[in-house]
Amino acid sequence: MMLAARYERAGTIEVVEIEPEPPGPGEVQIEVAYTGICGTDLHVFHGAMDGRVPPHTVIGHEMSGYVRAAGHDVHDWTVGDLVTVMPLQWCGACPACLDGNTHICHRLVFVGLDAPGSLQQRWNVDAGLLVRVPQGMDPAHAALIEPSAVAVHDVDRAGLSGSDITLVIGAGPIGLLIASVARSRGATVLLAETDDGRRRLAQSLGFEVLDQAEEAMLDRLDVVTSSAGVDVAFEVSGSQAGLDLAVNVLATRGRLVLVGIHPPSRTIDLFRVFWRELNLHGARVYQRRDFEVAVELIANDLIPARALISHVIPIRDVAEAFAALDSRSGAMKILVDCRAR
Amino acid sequence: MMLAARYERAGTIEVVEIEPEPPGPGEVQIEVAYTGICGTDLHVFHGAMDGRVPPHTVIGHEMSGYVRAAGHDVHDWTVGDLVTVMPLQWCGACPACLDGNTHICHRLVFVGLDAPGSLQQRWNVDAGLLVRVPQGMDPAHAALIEPSAVAVHDVDRAGLSGSDITLVIGAGPIGLLIASVARSRGATVLLAETDDGRRRLAQSLGFEVLDQAEEAMLDRLDVVTSSAGVDVAFEVSGSQAGLDLAVNVLATRGRLVLVGIHPPSRTIDLFRVFWRELNLHGARVYQRRDFEVAVELIANDLIPARALISHVIPIRDVAEAFAALDSRSGAMKILVDCRAR
Repeated sequence: MMLAARYERAGTIEVVEIEPEPPGPGEVQIEVAYTGICGTDLHVFHGAMDGRVPPHTVIGHEMSGYVRAAGHDVHDWTVGDLVTVMPLQWCGACPACLDGNTHICHRLVFVGLDAPGSLQQRWNVDAGLLVRVPQGMDPAHAALIEPSAVAVHDVDRAGLSGSDITLVIGAGPIGLLIASVARSRGATVLLAETDDGRRRLAQSLGFEVLDQAEEAMLDRLDVVTSSAGVDVAFEVSGSQAGLDLAVNVLATRGRLVLVGIHPPSRTIDLFRVFWRELNLHGARVYQRRDFEVAVELIANDLIPARALISHVIPIRDVAEAFAALDSRSGAMKILVDCRAR
Repeated sequence: MMLAARYERAGTIEVVEIEPEPPGPGEVQIEVAYTGICGTDLHVFHGAMDGRVPPHTVIGHEMSGYVRAAGHDVHDWTVGDLVTVMPLQWCGACPACLDGNTHICHRLVFVGLDAPGSLQQRWNVDAGLLVRVPQGMDPAHAALIEPSAVAVHDVDRAGLSGSDITLVIGAGPIGLLIASVARSRGATVLLAETDDGRRRLAQSLGFEVLDQAEEAMLDRLDVVTSSAGVDVAFEVSGSQAGLDLAVNVLATRGRLVLVGIHPPSRTIDLFRVFWRELNLHGARVYQRRDFEVAVELIANDLIPARALISHVIPIRDVAEAFAALDSRSGAMKILVDCRAR
């Protein structure tokens, strides 16, 4: 028997004991080590995605684990291999896929939302989704590969170069990962964050962090950029204030990557977009190479995985993990330990 | 003596008789042939730019003319040369200029708004602003080089290629120029326009024109794009409806160039920008090479200059030109004939 955490209804994740199934043809059974909880999981928990995620769904997609069994026709994986999963399944036939943008397939299946996820002790997934992780990597760190791949994708969408001055708006896990990836490319990186605790953590990682609530912030950006404005902004807060700040502080021809998920009703100063010839880029999930880069960055300590993990909670207490993330009381990346009994 | 048309106050352009001045050092005196009236001139006329354009200003910047005299230290120009003017003066020292984006200089002087323009019979301008026009070109057509340079710049901001399916939203003069430039690059071009007269003109130029007001429009775009959506959209209408349409019909990773001037309060569906990884690009005026390309396109009949000119009005009756543009009753490009007495 094994434990699995299932979304049941708004506010309720239940841990149940079920019989693991053997992997089907082409599948690998993974012994899940850690599953991180992300903002999308929290949306599911709040019932905001009930139209997409039905009751009894095992959610979770930021994970690490060990190959435990291979199904028929699986040749590349050996029991004991440390792995993570790129949780996307595309159709291969829609216009996006035909253009090579399989990650924004019109019929994309996101595993962990549209198909069973990793908040369980044994997880059967298509072998094609596995990503190899160096055997020596701490599996807790490896659970951060998926959100790091998001950050790599976002940084690439910006066409970031080492000479860019970059502002990351929002210093939650994704914001700090983007800041870390941008720093690894040689860019000058600042963050903007209103929460004291998040500001302190970002500072402890060596970043200059500005407080949007303080008037001196714009003066400081003027000094750092010699009044030119920032070359690249990442809007990670999902807030109107964050969007306004980004549009306001970008240099001529500056690039804004929209990472945070905004409602369709956002207002935006298109006059300034015109006046400064700004460039805005939507960014969604990742591609295979983003995972490969993320593995390298974590393996080389260019991503502060240890510092980003604020809680490790056994799967039996998964409700606690969601409550902690909900309260936002100092929670950063929360991992669920799926091997703890 | 000569005639000059001066903006006096909202709703009033006055034609006055004044003494022409000789060109200063580094300046050329142009005998203005034609000056087109553009949307920005109309904004001035409405009093909407009184903070920038003071009373008694001679406006106008879409022009053609002949060199009539050269000031001290001017060597490249000969009396009788057919010319147009790129009406931008930049500081050369601000961050935008230092980045090579002189056209969005932080201290840009737009000649015809921030300095005297071409709605006069003799016009002294810095020789560095002159753009050479082939002697054989009809000077009425040459007055369309400036707005054509806008269109070239917009098309380049989109990174348009011959395989792109393109939707131009708004079939006024700039929309039709963009459509023509895009067609010259081999792209498939459709327009969207609500006005019957403008739709008919665009159709007469060989474009397929859709009516946003008709439900069948989206079906037609589905057929043309095999349900992929358009690769590139140009929002030229400046309207919320146009913006919504553009965001709604773009393909994954589609590019939207914001040409029309929008107020800062526009709403935009950023969820769709995220979902389809759309790219938005502000576009403002032009660079020198855009003028050179525009000259070539008009010289090679790739821009339907003749068809776009709906009225030619003598400078003495310039108030009529603004009234005609204001009424929108079939007016397309209105030229003021500055040589007519």
